Amino acid sequence: MEPHYINPQNLQHRSDTVVFNGVAYVSGVVPGDNTLPVAEQTRQALAQIDQRLAEAGTSRSLLLSATIWMQDVNRDVGEFNQTWTAWLAPGRQPARACVQAVLQGGAMLEISVIAALP
Amino acid sequence: MEPHYINPQNLQHRSDTVVFNGVAYVSGVVPGDNTLPVAEQTRQALAQIDQRLAEAGTSRSLLLSATIWMQDVNRDVGEFNQTWTAWLAPGRQPARACVQAVLQGGAMLEISVIAALP
Amino acid sequence: MEPHYINPQNLQHRSDTVVFNGVAYVSGVVPGDNTLPVAEQTRQALAQIDQRLAEAGTSRSLLLSATIWMQDVNRDVGEFNQTWTAWLAPGRQPARACVQAVLQGGAMLEISVIAALP
Repeated sequence: MEPHYINPQNLQHRSDTVVFNGVAYVSGVVPGDNTLPVAEQTRQALAQIDQRLAEAGTSRSLLLSATIWMQDVNRDVGEFNQTWTAWLAPGRQPARACVQAVLQGGAMLEISVIAALP
Repeated sequence: MEPHYINPQNLQHRSDTVVFNGVAYVSGVVPGDNTLPVAEQTRQALAQIDQRLAEAGTSRSLLLSATIWMQDVNRDVGEFNQTWTAWLAPGRQPARACVQAVLQGGAMLEISVIAALP
Repeated sequence: MEPHYINPQNLQHRSDTVVFNGVAYVSGVVPGDNTLPVAEQTRQALAQIDQRLAEAGTSRSLLLSATIWMQDVNRDVGEFNQTWTAWLAPGRQPARACVQAVLQGGAMLEISVIAALP
């Protein structure tokens, strides 16, 4: 069994997602517009994750784990959580770690997830 | 085969642990009391991991990988390592990455692990 | 099926790599010499990853995901990417997240990967 590399060409230093043995590893996503408020940046990032999961044949209802990096975690995590929690499938929240990090290009947040395939 | 979500309700933005395909993904744990010395904060976090692993039907002797974030890695990693190394099952140390990050609420450390099921 | 722990003894707080269920979890690697330019530090870290993957019976052409921490991501990621992209197997780039973090001992970068076994 070989890994399946999704969109390995559109950026040369990563694939969007790699699928192996029933698990999809999704590259970290950042918002499209770093000047927007954190809730809107969260929505932009989650919309990208939805798209990546769909390309891999799965969805947010099969998330296994999420790593979240925030530019200012203590200032922004409350607002982030409101949008994040509403987006998650009820009773199917992933394991999660959420810490602070300076992000490329000044993004307020970056999200990386691992999901099961149905 | 469906993922098994452990305690998805007690915090609405994550599950404590998600089990899929023989692997347990455990949410990042932080110490209960951020005013204690690093050795004691380490013990508190590791006690939580023991509990989470037990709830998932596994234990520290089946760790696969660990990600450790420290508020001040160069100051605290030596003291952390003493408690961490004593806690690990001999010859069964996980793969590990350990870096610095500002953490929610001023915790000195956060630990996230992945473990095999027996 | 039991996890296979590779070199658990050479550092007491981690194994170099842990293999389970067809997946190799490789510990974060740092360059050997933190005084070199970022391109050379990148080459040193990637040479270590090649060695770890070989010890686990796999290679860079089966990477699933990579997490990269950089001391100064906005300053160094461009130079890092040149070496990184040339090192990756064409069409088989892993999923990736790349964020900033202070690293132990003043390393400019740390890289942790997960790979499939052939």
